[in-house]
Amino acid sequence: MTEKKLIEPRTLKGFNDLMPEEALLKRRMTSTLASVFESFGFCTIETPHLEFTEVLMGDASPEIQKQLFRFTDQGERDVTLRFDLTVPLARYISQYKNVLGLPFKRYVVGNAFRGEKPQKGRYREFTQCDFDFLGATGLGCDCEILQVVVAGLHALGISEFCIRINNRHVMNGFAQWLGVEDKIAAMIQTIDKIDKISAQGVLEELIGSVGLSREQAESVLSLIGSTPPSSRGADSLRGFGHPAMGTEEFARGISELRELGERLSAVGISEHQYRVDFSIARGFGYYTGTVFETNLDGLPEFGSICSGGRYDNLTQTFQKEQISGIGGSFGLDRLMAALKERSTRSPVRSPAQVLVVVGDEKSERLAAHVGALLRSAGQVCVDVFPEAAKIKKQLSYAERSGINLLVFVRDGQPTAVEARDGSFKKPCADEADLVATVRSLVK
Amino acid sequence: MTEKKLIEPRTLKGFNDLMPEEALLKRRMTSTLASVFESFGFCTIETPHLEFTEVLMGDASPEIQKQLFRFTDQGERDVTLRFDLTVPLARYISQYKNVLGLPFKRYVVGNAFRGEKPQKGRYREFTQCDFDFLGATGLGCDCEILQVVVAGLHALGISEFCIRINNRHVMNGFAQWLGVEDKIAAMIQTIDKIDKISAQGVLEELIGSVGLSREQAESVLSLIGSTPPSSRGADSLRGFGHPAMGTEEFARGISELRELGERLSAVGISEHQYRVDFSIARGFGYYTGTVFETNLDGLPEFGSICSGGRYDNLTQTFQKEQISGIGGSFGLDRLMAALKERSTRSPVRSPAQVLVVVGDEKSERLAAHVGALLRSAGQVCVDVFPEAAKIKKQLSYAERSGINLLVFVRDGQPTAVEARDGSFKKPCADEADLVATVRSLVK
Repeated sequence: MTEKKLIEPRTLKGFNDLMPEEALLKRRMTSTLASVFESFGFCTIETPHLEFTEVLMGDASPEIQKQLFRFTDQGERDVTLRFDLTVPLARYISQYKNVLGLPFKRYVVGNAFRGEKPQKGRYREFTQCDFDFLGATGLGCDCEILQVVVAGLHALGISEFCIRINNRHVMNGFAQWLGVEDKIAAMIQTIDKIDKISAQGVLEELIGSVGLSREQAESVLSLIGSTPPSSRGADSLRGFGHPAMGTEEFARGISELRELGERLSAVGISEHQYRVDFSIARGFGYYTGTVFETNLDGLPEFGSICSGGRYDNLTQTFQKEQISGIGGSFGLDRLMAALKERSTRSPVRSPAQVLVVVGDEKSERLAAHVGALLRSAGQVCVDVFPEAAKIKKQLSYAERSGINLLVFVRDGQPTAVEARDGSFKKPCADEADLVATVRSLVK
Repeated sequence: MTEKKLIEPRTLKGFNDLMPEEALLKRRMTSTLASVFESFGFCTIETPHLEFTEVLMGDASPEIQKQLFRFTDQGERDVTLRFDLTVPLARYISQYKNVLGLPFKRYVVGNAFRGEKPQKGRYREFTQCDFDFLGATGLGCDCEILQVVVAGLHALGISEFCIRINNRHVMNGFAQWLGVEDKIAAMIQTIDKIDKISAQGVLEELIGSVGLSREQAESVLSLIGSTPPSSRGADSLRGFGHPAMGTEEFARGISELRELGERLSAVGISEHQYRVDFSIARGFGYYTGTVFETNLDGLPEFGSICSGGRYDNLTQTFQKEQISGIGGSFGLDRLMAALKERSTRSPVRSPAQVLVVVGDEKSERLAAHVGALLRSAGQVCVDVFPEAAKIKKQLSYAERSGINLLVFVRDGQPTAVEARDGSFKKPCADEADLVATVRSLVK
């Protein structure tokens, strides 16, 4: 028998394995965010990773079309791995609208695929964490979406952030006022780059590729500058005036921003956690009202960690009936990176809080029994070393796993509870003593 | 401008959308199972849905090879959507074994893809829920894997089930004793069908396609019959004797089953929840020791809802060094179907426990405020209707969503808490009264 050739264990370029430390952090984060979405009554749904290409392609920009993982399946169907979770939502609500009814609130945590050039922190398979409020147009929805952003970040232990809010009616109205409505799409895409290319860069591009006059471009920059970072909350627009207010569309944007601010105050959102920012553009063409991005105070290099906006016609690919809504999306990868940056503790691999160390072979069954007891009576996550290996091996397992509390069993008896760092050590009289000791330490 | 052609919203054959009711149930189940895995110290990991075909193919049976979603990506790489979560685990542990060390316990909930002929309840994209204990050979691991099965089912509210346990050494040794070792693979695949084709069917196939003599086949059936369903727990093997016990391999199987039973008793697993069953074969060739399946009492038509076994050489595709382990897998789809069958309550679409009904436009902000208050002070999941729509529309939203408790606000005041079915109604004096009332009802 010839020896089988071994295959090199490796992943595709741009695809990423998560180490247990990262996977545990990610699971805890998604689980926390899901609880927050559910606390607001958002439903969850599931759609396949693979769909008909024509279903996904309808709304894809030419750039995304080049990045699709598209192929012909065994049944000669033209299929594509989903590149976001919004197009599948549009397909889903079009398909089941009679069963679901409107309004419909859904969240989803799922993976999407784009064959982008791999960069640091950007992968060809990535996780999205989206929440959308469909089929209602009132600003109550916009307010709730922002409440979810705040509640989500708080639940993740993040309190220092600022949601930067704008409204598409403002820039649309401003373009009308300037008489450059035909250039609005290019204007918005240029303004969207302000954090990358600075105000001066935006000015040059507005004059250069967009084709505004210097005067027009300067007046756009002056509008953007009228909402400085120092003005937070409802104060952002107090006393705001501008000649463009005579334009109905512009005035509507300002009025919606004012009302949204009042609604945020009514639900107890601190004024330090949001501000009006006319530089927030969001590149996508489909936004029509409120748009927002969220930055972490002191960590602007992570970019926006939660963004979104209002759209009027989610389902245009699939039906004539318009469905409007507002949605947001947490940037999980960025949030994970930010939480790692902020945390002083090193990430932990194992969810276990306690390891039962087995002193000798005849104590193996007792070790398993003690583990079961701590789990049921103590509500503790307990790992039990599976055999009476050398103590050094068991301790090195605890270290690798990041488990700090050790329970020792030997000679068929629990003997001691110890912290791995030596900060605590207590002999155990019996099982009840053991459970009480561990519970008091783990709480 | 010509009108854009609308695309029909539809999914691929064999791919399935989950309605919110199903998705909520599934999320709760996977979250419950994940908590159980973590309570035993299992780590979680993530691997990509898409891998090099050569990485996934190594261990795939010819049947599975025909079912792969395989294609050439933009970079001319031969790639495939994963068809299970075991091969990616083998690749992962081979790739990172120096970082991870052994033993290593991991669980994963994830989707896999097979282009099978779609059947009722079988989809081309499906979710697996796997847990594996790698790098330790002692029966302590086997015991822990079965503890996880029991704890998982209990946590899901399922108490009436039986884990049917066998050991590959038993049938291997029996084949040696019969002098038909060369036919063992075919024997096991035939025995595996016993629940489908009955004992008589197995007998005929053992004689027919496997090629045993009638006497040999009858002696296999007699062995299988020696562990009747009525014998549970450690009793299953009490006083067991058989001439094949003279074969070392057979005796090893019996001895491991006995020891496993003792270990299960030591960790408090009820004897009603498992039994030895020599008919449990598990089709896969890679199992080498303990194998198990789990059936729900009274619902045999659902088949096994948790199965698994011990293997000696998980990583043979990738490295010469052998890594052994034991693993199990919960059948989520079957469990969901069984829980639906058992439940007397109709499935619920929304996680919200309360809907705030908005009586008039000027109460919209108060409604949002009351929602925020109930979430923070009351720890309740609260949906707030986003605008002052007709009460009938809001009540029909509550009904569709399966939300039973209603809070009414009108004229800028909370007015009442009501159950949708009319079983409860209480006027509210103020916000504190409201929160207390809702908490007492939702607890």
